[in-house]
This record gives sequence, structure tokens and C-alpha cells, in this order.
Amino acid sequence: MNPWSQFAPELVTDLYELTMAASYLREDMFGDATFSLFIRAYPPGRSYFVAAGLEHFIDLVTAFRFEGDSLQFLASTGKFTTDFIEFLATLRFTGSIRALPEGRIFFADEPLLEVTAPIIEAQIVETLAINVLQLESLIASKAARIVHAAHGRSVIDFSLRRTHGVDAGLKAARASYLAGFTGTSNVLAGKIYGIPIFGTMAHSYVTSFEHELESFRAFARAFPDSTVLLIDTYDTLKGALKAVQVAREMAAEGKALRGVRLDSGDLATLSRGVRRILDDAGLNHVEILASGSLDELKIQDLRDAGAAIDAYAVGTHMGVSADAPYFDIAYKLVEYEDRPVLKLSSGKRTWVGRKQVFRHYDDQGKMLEDHLCLADEEHPGGEGLLEEVVRKGKRVKPAAPLQAIRQRVEGDFQRLPEACKHLREPQRYPVRISPSLQDLEEQTTRKVRREELG
Amino acid sequence: MNPWSQFAPELVTDLYELTMAASYLREDMFGDATFSLFIRAYPPGRSYFVAAGLEHFIDLVTAFRFEGDSLQFLASTGKFTTDFIEFLATLRFTGSIRALPEGRIFFADEPLLEVTAPIIEAQIVETLAINVLQLESLIASKAARIVHAAHGRSVIDFSLRRTHGVDAGLKAARASYLAGFTGTSNVLAGKIYGIPIFGTMAHSYVTSFEHELESFRAFARAFPDSTVLLIDTYDTLKGALKAVQVAREMAAEGKALRGVRLDSGDLATLSRGVRRILDDAGLNHVEILASGSLDELKIQDLRDAGAAIDAYAVGTHMGVSADAPYFDIAYKLVEYEDRPVLKLSSGKRTWVGRKQVFRHYDDQGKMLEDHLCLADEEHPGGEGLLEEVVRKGKRVKPAAPLQAIRQRVEGDFQRLPEACKHLREPQRYPVRISPSLQDLEEQTTRKVRREELG
Repeated sequence: MNPWSQFAPELVTDLYELTMAASYLREDMFGDATFSLFIRAYPPGRSYFVAAGLEHFIDLVTAFRFEGDSLQFLASTGKFTTDFIEFLATLRFTGSIRALPEGRIFFADEPLLEVTAPIIEAQIVETLAINVLQLESLIASKAARIVHAAHGRSVIDFSLRRTHGVDAGLKAARASYLAGFTGTSNVLAGKIYGIPIFGTMAHSYVTSFEHELESFRAFARAFPDSTVLLIDTYDTLKGALKAVQVAREMAAEGKALRGVRLDSGDLATLSRGVRRILDDAGLNHVEILASGSLDELKIQDLRDAGAAIDAYAVGTHMGVSADAPYFDIAYKLVEYEDRPVLKLSSGKRTWVGRKQVFRHYDDQGKMLEDHLCLADEEHPGGEGLLEEVVRKGKRVKPAAPLQAIRQRVEGDFQRLPEACKHLREPQRYPVRISPSLQDLEEQTTRKVRREELG
Repeated sequence: MNPWSQFAPELVTDLYELTMAASYLREDMFGDATFSLFIRAYPPGRSYFVAAGLEHFIDLVTAFRFEGDSLQFLASTGKFTTDFIEFLATLRFTGSIRALPEGRIFFADEPLLEVTAPIIEAQIVETLAINVLQLESLIASKAARIVHAAHGRSVIDFSLRRTHGVDAGLKAARASYLAGFTGTSNVLAGKIYGIPIFGTMAHSYVTSFEHELESFRAFARAFPDSTVLLIDTYDTLKGALKAVQVAREMAAEGKALRGVRLDSGDLATLSRGVRRILDDAGLNHVEILASGSLDELKIQDLRDAGAAIDAYAVGTHMGVSADAPYFDIAYKLVEYEDRPVLKLSSGKRTWVGRKQVFRHYDDQGKMLEDHLCLADEEHPGGEGLLEEVVRKGKRVKPAAPLQAIRQRVEGDFQRLPEACKHLREPQRYPVRISPSLQDLEEQTTRKVRREELG
């Protein structure tokens, strides 16, 4: 029994997507609509986002259809006419999608995705689009900060147990890997995405043996080529001495202890103490892995405090993006039948029309500024970031392999200005609004005010 | 194509569960172990938890098995012996589970779940147990606060788009419903769990029409018996006037406008203004629904400010438990082969042994205090909270229907002392540790210190 096989993608939707669709059908409204998905504002201390989730969204949209069970359920609610249920049975996504490729760095107000399709199709995938793209971009953005803080040391995803469900656990493993993590503890992510998997032992393993030393020996017997010992169950420095003893016993068998893990206490001081114990025993090759409520700020503090840590395992804080567990992300209608549209609701500006983002670089190749433009504007010298990924309901090019997406993140991160990477007080990156877009926004606002408020 | 059907429950695990299992197999360690799942500490401003997720966990554990694909993947990693892979193929959960029924209110340090089984079985379900029980308890606990703040007004779950993935969206709908929400926008949750579904229109619907008034009329045509109009797209009070116009047109057809929704601006002031406009038009029956970044504190503030709101829709802040997106939750070995065990890692106390929680009430039926005891202690006059739910790998009684769980939450919440319900500065509820448990904890600590640190 697999409870997740009940998750029919076409019902991963808010009911209003369907009530609106029913009304559009009734009114014969089939005109092309463009919706834009973007993040309105930065969470505190944040200054950039990393695009992720697009490939999953494309897979879902290009295969979108209402199957028998789902149609039966909708009919059973009594909310819809038979005409509408029959219409849903034939509904496919036939539109086009322009989007930032996964792994690109982007900024507030810039569309991550623009969907152009007959309005029912473009509207009905709203909930799915936000659900998929927010989570993966949220995690990739958090993970990029952690990779930056780790300053070249390995970081491993340990988040599965505290992610919000199993779907989130999988997405966290993938999104953190594409942002530069070395691997994950998540076995299913290893299977589905081909991400390297890591893991050794829990405190329960150590305590299940009569003595810590016995547990270390037993683990070395089972995994002589990849022994990493968790040494803080009772006392970290005493644990390190026992690890040395086991390392010597392993050496007598021609094997080498790979590493030790610290999971509690003052990691900066303890890691230096452990390093000294290991080095004094000639075990300079044994790596020290640290875990335990880590995030990018703690990792930076550990580095500043001269911790002797070779690799970090990061769980909860990355897996739920604890400091910013959601983005102010929206999927907004910006154009219907070539008419730019907007709402005036206070404090929630949407830039009208189909758009493109053009990025400019300085002569060292660093990002200089982005220009948010109308899609049909010419903008010489800028790199257009949104690419067409779906046309007439079909994928335009194959999904990029994860390794290519990792390289994209790395490339964009190198080009991001250093001041924007600061973990606590980052500088804002400039996003300029093109004069044509500003004009259209103002004209549209004036028109709407005149017609609706006048 | 359903991407979630790839989610094999047996691989929803951290790799270390499998490496430990491989070592236990190698060492012939098949003794009974008891693991205890509990929350160490309250997030800021919190004072109680609501148990949820147990039924899902029972379903997964009682059906737990490694299938062909999963075994092939594990074999392909090169990390495991053929003996171990063959062992996994035969592995079933044969142990017992004692747990708090879903819907019970509980407190820090109290076990939500105790699993007793041969150590490999009890260990291998760790990741799944934490993943499932944390999320649903997290959301139910948050939702109970929101229901309390709403003071008898309806609350509807609008969180699906911003939950962490689709699994979380489903769980949020179920957990908030059992905590007292009226329903959800989540169509799939309606299908899977039978939760009432709600939804009307987005701003995009309004803006897709040339004029707001036309959009209201079109919606009333499609759903004349359940018309709720979103009136803040351009100007809330002007939107209310248009709603009045549509309500009059509907009345001429023998239909009644059901409600209006406000999604932005100063909801307290605007809702009173809208109420006045509706009442002046004789539309006293038309309900006002409010949404837009609501949580329990904003709802309380709205009530304090005299808002005229009949129902609340709550999304993101509930769906990701934004103020506390994770619990400090752990699944710890507390006993192996009748030997109580613990770790000494700083700041992370675990109470040893198999336990029971006994709850005492005052003569008004209000909760007085809980006693955390050893499972075999007599404790006359207390209500034992943990119940056996799985014995020898089989479910002991059928899953409770959602309605029964809702009543449990309601019952426990009525009995919770008022001071513990305070939304900003709640009082701590007393959880006493029994003398026998304290003794055993101290003896075990002394023994471990002597043997491991001496």
C-alpha cells in the first residue's frame, strides 16, 4: 500500500480553480491569458532566490488530465454541471510556458514563470505551480546560503525526518543538491534522483550496546571501508579517545577509520579538542563531521571561531527553511486577450503584461543589474533570462540533468556581487523597471481607476 | 503519470537506519528495543501540542516491507551484503506500538508514541515516524490555536499552494480539520478524507472581465446558490456596493447572495464598512469572509478591534506553522533487552524506560497535572493516555473516524486550563516526573557515567 499513489495531480488544486473554470466555460471565455509567478518581497536577511522546481512542474502540466476517479469525485460533490465534468474529461494543457531555468539566481518582482494559455488551462494549474515552485525554490535558496557559509567544506542534507511530509523531504534533497550540497541521508532521493547518499549511526546504536567501545567496534566490522563514528553520546573527548583505539585496531587489519561525527555541545571547542586527539594519534586523515541544529549562521560562527570541522550535516533548518518557511509568492493574471490587467488591492503590486528579465554584467563578469521589461521589448546587451520551455502543451527541450543545474547555480553564484551574498545584512541587487513597462503599468492603473473607482 | 507513486514508504528513511540494521544483523542483535517519540521543548509562545498523524503511521508500519525495486536499488549502492538484502526482503514489523490517540492534547517530554520491537524493526521506522507524526501534530497544534482565536467563527484551510509540497498540503487539510477547522480549499483532501471543500474566485477572475460588476454577475449565474464574491480587487467598499447590486439582481431571480470575501487592507475597518453597506441594503444574511496572511494573533487582534467578520480563511501561516515550522522532536532508544538506556549529550535529556502518562483532573473536569511514569507503575486516579494500537505487527482496533478525532480535540481543549490557552503568554502546564522514573533515570545516569566516563 502506497498512500501517495492517491495523489492525483489534477486534484492538487484549490476548489476555486474549478469554480472559476466552470464559470469561464459557462461564459464561453476561452481567450488566451498570461499568468506570472513571482516573489513579491525578500524575507528578512535575504537578497536573492535560486530557481528550482520547474522540471517537476513541466512534467505535471504536460501530463495534466482529469481521470475517471477524479471526475467521479467532482461530480459527486454536486457543485458542478454534467457539461463541466464532460469538459474537464477532455481538458489538456495546450499553452506555452516561459520560465527561468532551474538553478538561475533571481530577485523579487522577476517572473520565475509565465504561463500563456486559454484562461481555464492557465488558471487551473495555479495551485500546483505555486506549490511546486515555491517549495523547491525556497529550499534551493536556503541551501545556497548554507553552501556559501560552508566555504568549500562538504554539506550533507539530513533533513528528511523533519521536512513537512515525504514530498518535501524528496524536494529538499534534490533542491539542496542542486544548490551545491554533496549528498543526502535520504535513501529514496538517492533512488529517484541519483543523489549520493550518506549515513552512519544514531545515538541509539551506541546506547544499544553495553559499552560505547563495543558499538564502535561492531560498526567498523560491518563497514570497514566507510566507518564514521558518532562520538558524543556520553562525552565527546572520551568518545574521540575510543575512536582512536578503534582506528588502531582497524589499522592492524589494514583498514582506516574514515571519520567521526559530533552532534552536540560547543562544536567549535570540541572539534578542536577532537582534532588534537586524532592528530596526536597520527590520525590526520580522519575527518570531523558536525551536525546538530546547524544553519548558515551557525556554520559561519563556527568558522569564525576556528572550528576544526571538515564537513557539515544540515537538517531541520534547511529542510523547512526555518528562518523563512514561505515566500510571498503569487501567480497573477497579467494579461487577458491582449489586455493588460492588474488589481489595486493595497500593498500588492503586480507588473502587468508578458515580461522578460534582461541581466547585465560588468567587465569582470559580475552581475550589474537586471531590467524587468515587456516580453516584446528589444534590450541589446542584456541576457534574456526567461526561456520557452513548453510550447502548445509540449516540452520544448529535455530536462537538464542535475549536474548541469548544479553548475548553473555555481556559475550564477560566482557572478552574484559579494555584497549581496552577506548572510546577515546583504545588499539589495538592483532590478530596474523598463520605461515601457512603467508606462503600461501607469496607463493600466489609470484606466482601471477610472472605470472601477470613478 | 503520478510522480508520487514512486514514494516507496520503506525507502522514506535516512541511510543510517539501514547501516545500523546491517550491523545489528551482523552482530545477531535481535533483542527487543523500545523507542520513545516525544517533543523536548515548546516553541516560543506555545504551551501544548495536539497529537495527529498516528493513523497514517500505523498504516505505513503495518504494511512495511521492502519490495523488489527498493531491494534492487539498495543492492546497487554497493553498501550492503547480499545477506542483508535478503534479510530485508523478509523483514516485517512484528512489534507493538503504544501511542496517544489522535486528537489528544499533550505536553513536552510526554511520549506521543512508544515502539517496542526487535531493534532492527523499531529502529528502521524512525525516520518515517518522525516525518509523519511531527508534521501532522505541528499543523494540528497550530490550527487549534487558530480555532481558539476565531472564537466560534468558521475557519477554512486555504494553505495548499504554500504548504511544503503536496503531502504537506493533504496533511495540513486533515490536521486542521481535526483541530476544528470547518473545511478546506484542497480538493484532493476532500476526496481522500471526506473533508468539506470550499472555494469561489481569485482576483484573476475579476480582472479577466472588462468590469468587476460583470465578473460578479457571471459568477452568480454559474453558482446562484453559493455565490461568494471577492470584493477587494479594486476598492473594497466600492466592491461591496457592486455586490449589493448583484444581490438585488439575484433576489429578483429568487436567489440570495451568500457572502463576500475581503483579502487585503485594514480588515477590521473595511469589514465594518462592508457590514454597514450590506445591512443598509437589507442584506444582513450576507456573510463576510476574511483572508490574507491571517494567523491566530491577527485574528485575535481583528476580534479585539471589533471586526465584522463571520468566517476566516487561513493559509500560509497555518499550513507551514510559520511561527514554529518544526518541533524539537526526537525518537530515542529508552530500553534495550530490559536495560534502560540514555545518552548524556549536553542539553538533550531523554527519560529512560517504557512510560505511561497519567492525567489528573480537578472536580470541574479541568486538567490539573500530568504524571510521567514508568509503564508498569500503578497510578490510581489518573487517566492513562497511551493506548496500545499495534500488537505483534497488527492494528489492534480500527482507525477512528475524523469526526471522532475532532470531538477528542474539542473535549481536551475544553478541559485545558484557560491560562494555558493564552495565545501570547501561555502558562506552562505541570508535568510531574514520578519518583520511580526519577530513580531509574538517576541510577542509569550513574551507571553510564561510571562505565563510560570513569
